[in-house]
Order: sequence, then C-alpha cells, then structure tokens
Amino acid sequence: MKTIGILGGMGPMATVDLMKKIILSTPAKADQEHIPMLVDNNCLIPDRTRAIKGLGPSPVPEMVKSAKRLMAGGADFIIMACNTAHYFLPEILPHISIPVLSIIDVAVDHIMEQGYQQVGLLATSGTISTGLYQKALEAKNIKCIAPAAQRQHIVDDMIYDGVKANNEAYDTGDIRALLADMRKQGAEAFILGCTEVPVAVSMYGLEGVFVDSTDELARAAVKFSREEK
Amino acid sequence: MKTIGILGGMGPMATVDLMKKIILSTPAKADQEHIPMLVDNNCLIPDRTRAIKGLGPSPVPEMVKSAKRLMAGGADFIIMACNTAHYFLPEILPHISIPVLSIIDVAVDHIMEQGYQQVGLLATSGTISTGLYQKALEAKNIKCIAPAAQRQHIVDDMIYDGVKANNEAYDTGDIRALLADMRKQGAEAFILGCTEVPVAVSMYGLEGVFVDSTDELARAAVKFSREEK
Repeated sequence: MKTIGILGGMGPMATVDLMKKIILSTPAKADQEHIPMLVDNNCLIPDRTRAIKGLGPSPVPEMVKSAKRLMAGGADFIIMACNTAHYFLPEILPHISIPVLSIIDVAVDHIMEQGYQQVGLLATSGTISTGLYQKALEAKNIKCIAPAAQRQHIVDDMIYDGVKANNEAYDTGDIRALLADMRKQGAEAFILGCTEVPVAVSMYGLEGVFVDSTDELARAAVKFSREEK
Repeated sequence: MKTIGILGGMGPMATVDLMKKIILSTPAKADQEHIPMLVDNNCLIPDRTRAIKGLGPSPVPEMVKSAKRLMAGGADFIIMACNTAHYFLPEILPHISIPVLSIIDVAVDHIMEQGYQQVGLLATSGTISTGLYQKALEAKNIKCIAPAAQRQHIVDDMIYDGVKANNEAYDTGDIRALLADMRKQGAEAFILGCTEVPVAVSMYGLEGVFVDSTDELARAAVKFSREEK
C-alpha cells in the first residue's frame, strides 16, 4: 500500500477529520491492514483566505516545507485537508515530485456520479472568490449556487468563530436560515467545500443533503493507496 | 512551541483520538495558535500484545524507524498513543535523542492528584501481563483492580473485535456487567489503560468515572510543548 502524505494543519481539526474518514473508509480488521499515513500538522502555515484577500503572507513557503518533509519521510502521494489551499497548488506542484490528489476534483467527480444539476457551495470567502469550485462545476454543466455576497460572512463566521475557535456552543440560527434559503433557490445538495464545514455539520447537528469534500478525498486516497505502486 | 512527534498507528483510531484531544486541550483561537504535530501513523508496527505473548514479531524495529522519521522531520519530543507499546520503551530509548513523555506516568500522576485509592484497570491482556500500571500504582500505594483472569477476554474482545475492526454495532452487554462487578469490588474509577478504550467508551456510550490515559497524555503534551525550549 502507498503511504498517504497529509499536508495538514489547515486547520488541525480538519486534518484529524480527514484521517478519521480515511481509517473508516479502509476495509481493515486489524491495525496492520490500515494504510500508513505520514501527517505534517503544520500550524505555522499562514491563513489561506487572508492571503488570497491580500491581507496576510503567502502560505506557499510553509506548504512547500511540509511537502518536502512528507517526501523525505517516505510519503508516496500528497493530499491536503483544506479546499482553499488548493488555490496555491500551481505554485507548489513544481516543488513536489510525487502525485497530489485534488479535493476539488474528487468532490466534483462525486457530484457528477450522483447526477446533481444544481448544488449549493458552503466554503470560505477565500475559496468562493477564487472560483475553484464554480469553474470546475461549470465545466461539467452543473449550476453552482453560492450564498449572496452579503450573507457569505455567515459561513465564514461559523468556520472561524465556531470550529477553528473550538466553540461548541456557537449559535447556528443564521446558518440554518441560509441553508433553507439556498434550498429554495434550487440547491439539491450542498458541497461542504471547506474541510471545517463537515466538522461544523457534525458538531452542531446541521441537516441536509451534503457532499462532503473530505469524505470524497478520503475515499479517493484509500482507493489510490491500494492500487498497485 | 515544541513540535509534538506522535509515534502512531497503534492503532490508527487511537492516534486520531490523541490528536483530537491535543487540539481540544490547546488554548487556540486560530490555526496558527495550535501546536505543530508530526505524526507517523505507522500501521506496519506489529501487534504489541501478540509480541508480549510470544505469538508474533517484536514491534521494536518498526517503532525505531518511526521514531527516526519523527526526529528527522523536526519533532522535539515523542509520545505514543498506545499503552502496551510502553513496555518496549526501554528497548527504543537508546535510539532516541529527544524526550519521550510516558502515558503510564501521566495517567498515574492524575490518579494521585484526584486522590483515588482503588482503581480498576481496563487494558489489553498484553498490558495487564506486563504489570506496567500495577507496578506504577503500587509504588504510590494505590490498589489496582484488574478483571478476573477468565473475564479479561471481555476487554480484549471489545478492543480487537469492536474498535480495531470498526464495528459500531458491537454487543457491549458483557463489558457493562464487568464494569459493574469491578465497581462492587471497590473500583472508585477506571483507568482507560489502552488508547482504544476511550474510543470504545465514546463509540458505545459506556458510563462510569474514567481516567482517560489519552486525555492525560494530551494535556501533558500540550503543557510540555508550550514550556520554553
């Protein structure tokens, strides 16, 4: 089996969520049948959304350091438990000599398989502004419904003040109303397009039809790891 | 902050549980305030209990390989999310040039602080047979109550056929009866002395006063990481 390298710490809890989903997606009956993972939980990587908005330093140098540690430690391929970070992938790839599985690609593949024609996008304003998902979905003729600009902060607040701040008592009234309105606009399902959002869904008991990008990445990583080297 | 090195994969889910507890024990409001962790989820490490019983190969060579990867990757100290593995610590320490925090020591420290005088021990038969906890507790004049020899398999079965096999529907009638009987014998609290047992407590909703060795290790690691280098 190939060793999975996780370029992590974006955020730490999303990294743990990805690892857990990899373990639960692995057909194993003993420790030794699970997949080796090397995880660089690099909390020093600067905030991706702030960098995209021009409000903070680029995460690229720290991401490259992590990728090099993973390669040196024997990882056979790399995945990242952060959707927004994928915006920087073109800058990082020249430094990496092993494959990278993209969370965006595997999530869009799953939406195609399910046959959804209109999907809501729950992601950071950083990811939204990059158009990462919108472009990938439009290329497949799938309509992407993002929150109205003046309500996008509801998703960001839940990610930053809720999950990333370990706040289990976060008030979820606004996000529940937003989901209901996006459903009325035609969203058949919601892409959990930030790896902190499935953590929020579970922590706060949000309900709906969700395409969990972390789940899709976990399944794709397990499949790739078990294919012949 | 010091980088925490986790010698993991013993088992994979216990490794994830330790990481989660480290994150939740960290006073952080943003990714960048969390503690860097380098995690070697080395599923190739042979079963510790089988090695102690003479039924399988020694885990020491693979554990040393992992420790070396962690040191090479910049870990400042090492922790292991496996109580049984601590039996092999004397064989591994000569190969490690950075500190190792022992899960046994931090759990016993916590029991002392709480003032318990009689504690039940829920651990693998491997850990039980090594006397790791019994000796450490007796040295502090604390009585250790282990399951009767003919009922120890109830704990092992829950660990191996329940948690390690990802079996969420495992039947917990026997373990609940065992806990009740150990309470009658005088156990004021139970040491969760295998890192898969807190996973079982949460997965199966077991009730009682528990000293979670993983929780104690997480708190000790956060404290040590934040002390001056």
